[in-house]
Amino acid sequence: MDFYGYFRSSSSYRCRIAFNLKGIDYSFKPVHLKNGAQHEPAFKALNPQGLLPALVTDEGDVLIQSLAILEWLDETHPTPPLLSSDPLTRARERGFAQVIACEIHPLQNLRILKYLTGDLGVDEAAKDAWLTRWLRDGLKACEDLLAQRSTHTEFCYGDTPGLADICLVPQVFSAERFGIRYDDLPHVSAVYAACQKLSAFDNAAPKNQPDFEA
Amino acid sequence: MDFYGYFRSSSSYRCRIAFNLKGIDYSFKPVHLKNGAQHEPAFKALNPQGLLPALVTDEGDVLIQSLAILEWLDETHPTPPLLSSDPLTRARERGFAQVIACEIHPLQNLRILKYLTGDLGVDEAAKDAWLTRWLRDGLKACEDLLAQRSTHTEFCYGDTPGLADICLVPQVFSAERFGIRYDDLPHVSAVYAACQKLSAFDNAAPKNQPDFEA
Repeated sequence: MDFYGYFRSSSSYRCRIAFNLKGIDYSFKPVHLKNGAQHEPAFKALNPQGLLPALVTDEGDVLIQSLAILEWLDETHPTPPLLSSDPLTRARERGFAQVIACEIHPLQNLRILKYLTGDLGVDEAAKDAWLTRWLRDGLKACEDLLAQRSTHTEFCYGDTPGLADICLVPQVFSAERFGIRYDDLPHVSAVYAACQKLSAFDNAAPKNQPDFEA
Repeated sequence: MDFYGYFRSSSSYRCRIAFNLKGIDYSFKPVHLKNGAQHEPAFKALNPQGLLPALVTDEGDVLIQSLAILEWLDETHPTPPLLSSDPLTRARERGFAQVIACEIHPLQNLRILKYLTGDLGVDEAAKDAWLTRWLRDGLKACEDLLAQRSTHTEFCYGDTPGLADICLVPQVFSAERFGIRYDDLPHVSAVYAACQKLSAFDNAAPKNQPDFEA
């Protein structure tokens, strides 16, 4: 299958981790987000919203939205699973992933930061305050959710990584990139450290992608 | 089960439609979003992020994030289903739902609009431009996705309403409320009109909620 992504895109990063965990081969098609390649007609034919990632299956079907791609990967390549078999735990895993995908990440992606500094004329300090507000608040919510668990497992919701960890790691990576602290969030820090030790996560990191730019 | 929501909250509206479609009884616990009741300790104990909705199951387990709640409802109350049994169609339904839940709704919710006009001191015209940009672009992406379907069914992805429709209707309702046009989006308009004819959708509308305020 063909995977359209960008080394620094959080949502691409999520999919790369899942490909690695499941041992799925894919052909990487880089889309240079910072140069605006996502707005070119060839890519918009795949995803009319002009957002990464997009996955083209071996049958030529196009899938968009990282969480939908992750669920599809899990349904079509079930081993190892990304979600628990218990509906309640699945709801917690999905809820945690969505705290990131629906409440944190949308507020920090490139198009929003461009709109803030461009259309709204916001200065660097106000942009940083925006990032701090939504990333700190969001990661604090992640911390609280992890603290609420009945069992404090090595990964978010179990002894193996899953959907929640796949979303957490790229979000913490973004926080680091934007200079947002999280060292006072012990559960988040512990899960992040546990994931970083796994080759599936390390190989998915931005610095290890073929389109990486310093 | 206890459902914590607010009449005008899009994500609460999504859950209400699903409860109605599936014929699930629930006890409604209003949280007055505009008065800030979501920030009170009693509610933050349920959802540390202070966002609606939250669902407390009959076993006392707390679920957050509307899409996670919808998937849990579908797994525990499978009739009628909210997702197709075909993995590819499920991916399209989830992708469509996430275009709304991850890319449109997060940019128009109350905390963001408050931050724009409060912290960033943005005037009403610039706030309206922000809303127009993200809601119009987002609904246009929904239109393009619906136009790409191989079969133009009455609802987004079939002859019965599902996850995609459940997300689309509250988003179009918000667009109307903010004065964003969508009459030039024929597929979006047709699905919205088809849904409005169903009592499960109509009974879930903000104006029909016990906490409604004009």
